[in-house]
Amino acid sequence: MIHFRNDYNDIAHPKLIERLVTYQNEAHLGYGMDLHSKHAKDVIQKHIKTPVYVHFMSGGTSTNKIVISHLLKPFEAVISAATGHIEVHETGAIEQTGHKIISLPTHDGKIDAQQIDEAYQTFTDEHMVKPKMVYISQATETGLIYSKKELQAIYEVCQKLNMYLFVDGARLGVALTSKENDLTLDDMVNLTDIFYIGGTKNGALLGEAVITKHAFMDDYFRYSMKQQGGLLAKSFLVGMQFEGLFENDLFYEIGRHANQMSSYLISQLKSIGLQFNETPTNQQFITLKKEKIEQLKKTYTFEIWQDLKDKQMIRLVTTYRTTKEDIDQLILDLKK
Amino acid sequence: MIHFRNDYNDIAHPKLIERLVTYQNEAHLGYGMDLHSKHAKDVIQKHIKTPVYVHFMSGGTSTNKIVISHLLKPFEAVISAATGHIEVHETGAIEQTGHKIISLPTHDGKIDAQQIDEAYQTFTDEHMVKPKMVYISQATETGLIYSKKELQAIYEVCQKLNMYLFVDGARLGVALTSKENDLTLDDMVNLTDIFYIGGTKNGALLGEAVITKHAFMDDYFRYSMKQQGGLLAKSFLVGMQFEGLFENDLFYEIGRHANQMSSYLISQLKSIGLQFNETPTNQQFITLKKEKIEQLKKTYTFEIWQDLKDKQMIRLVTTYRTTKEDIDQLILDLKK
Amino acid sequence: MIHFRNDYNDIAHPKLIERLVTYQNEAHLGYGMDLHSKHAKDVIQKHIKTPVYVHFMSGGTSTNKIVISHLLKPFEAVISAATGHIEVHETGAIEQTGHKIISLPTHDGKIDAQQIDEAYQTFTDEHMVKPKMVYISQATETGLIYSKKELQAIYEVCQKLNMYLFVDGARLGVALTSKENDLTLDDMVNLTDIFYIGGTKNGALLGEAVITKHAFMDDYFRYSMKQQGGLLAKSFLVGMQFEGLFENDLFYEIGRHANQMSSYLISQLKSIGLQFNETPTNQQFITLKKEKIEQLKKTYTFEIWQDLKDKQMIRLVTTYRTTKEDIDQLILDLKK
Amino acid sequence: MIHFRNDYNDIAHPKLIERLVTYQNEAHLGYGMDLHSKHAKDVIQKHIKTPVYVHFMSGGTSTNKIVISHLLKPFEAVISAATGHIEVHETGAIEQTGHKIISLPTHDGKIDAQQIDEAYQTFTDEHMVKPKMVYISQATETGLIYSKKELQAIYEVCQKLNMYLFVDGARLGVALTSKENDLTLDDMVNLTDIFYIGGTKNGALLGEAVITKHAFMDDYFRYSMKQQGGLLAKSFLVGMQFEGLFENDLFYEIGRHANQMSSYLISQLKSIGLQFNETPTNQQFITLKKEKIEQLKKTYTFEIWQDLKDKQMIRLVTTYRTTKEDIDQLILDLKK
Repeated sequence: MIHFRNDYNDIAHPKLIERLVTYQNEAHLGYGMDLHSKHAKDVIQKHIKTPVYVHFMSGGTSTNKIVISHLLKPFEAVISAATGHIEVHETGAIEQTGHKIISLPTHDGKIDAQQIDEAYQTFTDEHMVKPKMVYISQATETGLIYSKKELQAIYEVCQKLNMYLFVDGARLGVALTSKENDLTLDDMVNLTDIFYIGGTKNGALLGEAVITKHAFMDDYFRYSMKQQGGLLAKSFLVGMQFEGLFENDLFYEIGRHANQMSSYLISQLKSIGLQFNETPTNQQFITLKKEKIEQLKKTYTFEIWQDLKDKQMIRLVTTYRTTKEDIDQLILDLKK
Repeated sequence: MIHFRNDYNDIAHPKLIERLVTYQNEAHLGYGMDLHSKHAKDVIQKHIKTPVYVHFMSGGTSTNKIVISHLLKPFEAVISAATGHIEVHETGAIEQTGHKIISLPTHDGKIDAQQIDEAYQTFTDEHMVKPKMVYISQATETGLIYSKKELQAIYEVCQKLNMYLFVDGARLGVALTSKENDLTLDDMVNLTDIFYIGGTKNGALLGEAVITKHAFMDDYFRYSMKQQGGLLAKSFLVGMQFEGLFENDLFYEIGRHANQMSSYLISQLKSIGLQFNETPTNQQFITLKKEKIEQLKKTYTFEIWQDLKDKQMIRLVTTYRTTKEDIDQLILDLKK
Repeated sequence: MIHFRNDYNDIAHPKLIERLVTYQNEAHLGYGMDLHSKHAKDVIQKHIKTPVYVHFMSGGTSTNKIVISHLLKPFEAVISAATGHIEVHETGAIEQTGHKIISLPTHDGKIDAQQIDEAYQTFTDEHMVKPKMVYISQATETGLIYSKKELQAIYEVCQKLNMYLFVDGARLGVALTSKENDLTLDDMVNLTDIFYIGGTKNGALLGEAVITKHAFMDDYFRYSMKQQGGLLAKSFLVGMQFEGLFENDLFYEIGRHANQMSSYLISQLKSIGLQFNETPTNQQFITLKKEKIEQLKKTYTFEIWQDLKDKQMIRLVTTYRTTKEDIDQLILDLKK
Repeated sequence: MIHFRNDYNDIAHPKLIERLVTYQNEAHLGYGMDLHSKHAKDVIQKHIKTPVYVHFMSGGTSTNKIVISHLLKPFEAVISAATGHIEVHETGAIEQTGHKIISLPTHDGKIDAQQIDEAYQTFTDEHMVKPKMVYISQATETGLIYSKKELQAIYEVCQKLNMYLFVDGARLGVALTSKENDLTLDDMVNLTDIFYIGGTKNGALLGEAVITKHAFMDDYFRYSMKQQGGLLAKSFLVGMQFEGLFENDLFYEIGRHANQMSSYLISQLKSIGLQFNETPTNQQFITLKKEKIEQLKKTYTFEIWQDLKDKQMIRLVTTYRTTKEDIDQLILDLKK
């Protein structure tokens, strides 16, 4: 089988698995107090000029729950695109912590500064929740990215309205290495209040790294992690992964390769006449006849994104493991 | 350094790390729908006669949150020993899900059937919570184990009072392989409603396996896992660990070795005249002068359990990695 | 001042205040165990053929919280119109209990059976919440009512999909006495799973009466009331109000008068050429120039519903206290 | 029947019912924005030198939920006596908002500064909740009161440890008018962070008044009230009650009479040789043979407090309605 299903279907990048073998006879302090986690924080800090606080998390939904519930008061709400992961694919995880999600319509998975500003104005008194945070994903669940200008505008609105900006970076790796990207990790710190660097979908065994420049957000953060079941006893595992990702730019290499393969996929799909809205990251969404899809299923893995009468939209995801040969093979089968 | 700190300070048992290397080029379905998880369930089922439902979890606190909040109605409460992990060491994780813990006094970390029965009777009407679950740990946080007779008595009270019995098995490995143990995995199924087999503290990279014989408890369980942030994208990691633990009795080997070393530790400590309440599992608690402890800290890792004026109680934990040499060395240093 | 502001601006209907005076030297059991509450339940039951369970609540938002959180499991969600009270005007009260509201678009404040069916189908697996309840308001927040046929269709969809139907009856009084209404209190029982009869907005001092035909919904309901802070010590006050409302059809009289005045208001507004979407209950929404509104504010109370550049939509509410003279005066001033 | 059951068994003090009659033709703004509520705040402020913020609540449990959840972060906990209302008689209402109650042992219903200090020290890291509030009741659930010296000591510990002191004043009326009392309403403001003046148990129809000197506690407080279902539409009812209670010292008169009758009850009970631990407020607890209790039940109402083999402890509550004749009659029947 050739895999285009998702970016979290293998154990980890070989260089990261290697580390587990290397460190297998070490003993570590539990719950993130170990030296690998400490070192991983230093390594990440080297990529960022502003001093930041870093915490290693167990997974994306857990991270979203922890960040949001740590920062909001009971009656405060978070604004999200209607396609946001917290709104559609986390089984009400945010509501479980007591907070309403204010869902904004979106035609492509992104929301903009003006829209946020206007939405905020409709919450006028104590009979309504108080919007206090904006949540966006970089890259979005639809494979797009926010430009520096767009992010800046959103952050300015947030500051004007006294709201926090939280960026879900489950796919920050492919965002920062997209050829359309004009943001750096430093920009992410400067133009948000808190965000996370996704490990799970970028080659790590597991884990995400929450980053904030604000001391008040760091205060007691570990209490929230523990209370929400997100503080792993063997949290050093996540530290080790992030050491490996950031000591030698492996994090960027992984994202870059996925994007390069995605660009190649786009060009090849276009070369055989397929029309679709391409994205600048590692997810492409194409629409095919159902019969064709049934044939492809024999050789390829992928997700059905949407049912459209006699057609279906499917999602093709490239990763650091995707090869040109994988894509060439797919194109051949598509041409048949 | 020689380690007696805890049973989760290394990455994983070499045989389990090996598996990660072996499977590193495989692609897997996410969120526990993969073949390793399926196979791991089959492998666990082979150890148990009664048909059971199995779910692979990310960690202990997360598991406790999920099981308890999945089963209780808002006004229902869980009874626990005052020393129970959920009561003292989970930062109010259970209360975060809205449920009160009814804490019972205990002199040694265990609670008994009669005590539960009596406590239940004091909750008389709708001005008080309704006790609906009993939570015990096997082994307990204090290193003790419940005998079959004791467990049976507790389960009978639970059934009489229409309460669920949930056993936290974070240290079930050392419990089932203790020389004082008379319970089997089958007994665990028959004499509880739901329990878990701890991986994290028994050699696994991470993860716990929740087991229940009740279809109604299994219903929508994955919804609760996802909502609570406990459904890992790479859940197949946990599946692989449990495959490794149960295909060849590695689970028991790990527990057994830890217990053997603990027995050896007890005998050696006694041989040098130390008085303490020994436990039948892998945790021993001894009291020493503070000066002595300061000296030991240079060569050994361990936790300070309790401050007692000029003395301290420390906890010594043995694991599958502990050797006789480690213990002999400690005894030598203690004799000095 | 002449009042069109809302239907909860006076203490209570004189006949209900009278009861407080009459009973002032009685002593009552607390927390709803008193004889007035018991009698009020009997009196309500006399209006309904199917045997029902009745609970007296302290207010609307509290009632919505209690009913919804009592019935739903943590991962279950409630479907509501985007204009539903729980969605827009309860400060995230439902989310505070951990549940997501699935908001359906609506052009007039009502939702229909097909829409519910289609929405349900989009929730496909454990990465999404599970829709388990439909919440509608009768009358709606926009002053409209569901016909028997519409309610029947919604209830059928709910039963097909194994969802509960809960009707917020804060304004059930004006709904059941609307000239367009074809539903009886019996229909409300037969075509819903649980609903409430609003007292606060229909002449009572305070309180609402939750009604359900299902024993399983009644089970431990008082626990949920108490836990949510909705079980008043002097709950007998609510019992007394409902005795007064249902012993002599005062409940219907109050709603009927409000509706008659609303009809008169409609006819008079039309007679002076005002165009607007009339409603069959006690709320009318008309659009006027801002200057006009400023003038009216000197003599009348009402709420600004919506800002529309140089105009505003205002809401005029009639109650059992509204007189033809009030309306004639308003019309005179509007004509000026 | 002669009533010693509780202090919330009648509708309201005649002077307060009178107000409902007087104001019955007024129209009021909803949700506490009315003039009576405003005036009631002014009237209360006149009794207190320090400027304070006042909110009118619907009931005690609701108030406790709102105050505690408004002020605490998710991982913060509240310290309470084991006999505290929030710990034993609110069906887990506080835990429903996500917070753990740290229960301190008490022999008489009171806790002291040293005990609080010591308890605080046992919460050492992020594996445990963070104590952030102390909750005490004045008068306690056992009828006792804290002296100025005791309250001062508790408040000092709270300030030292950066915890809030919250006083449940459901029975503040009898506390402040007890002959043993040395606290004023001003002391309550100065020696606590937030407290409430109970209306329900001191002659009001319903309602409690939350008082705080801290602006940050007042911020968005109405959001919490609304979200928790505690903001009554007809909140003006509570405002009217507190106007009546504080315009002419009726609040104190009611408490004083209850206490005088309680003192008389004590002296008469002692005169016939009954031994018991008397309290300085309106609740007395006496132990009688079960047969005697059965006889008394024919003429008197009271609560059974505790079962003691062949005896029972009963609670006798005096109120502003209790007369010497009621007590003389009871004494006669006890002597028989």
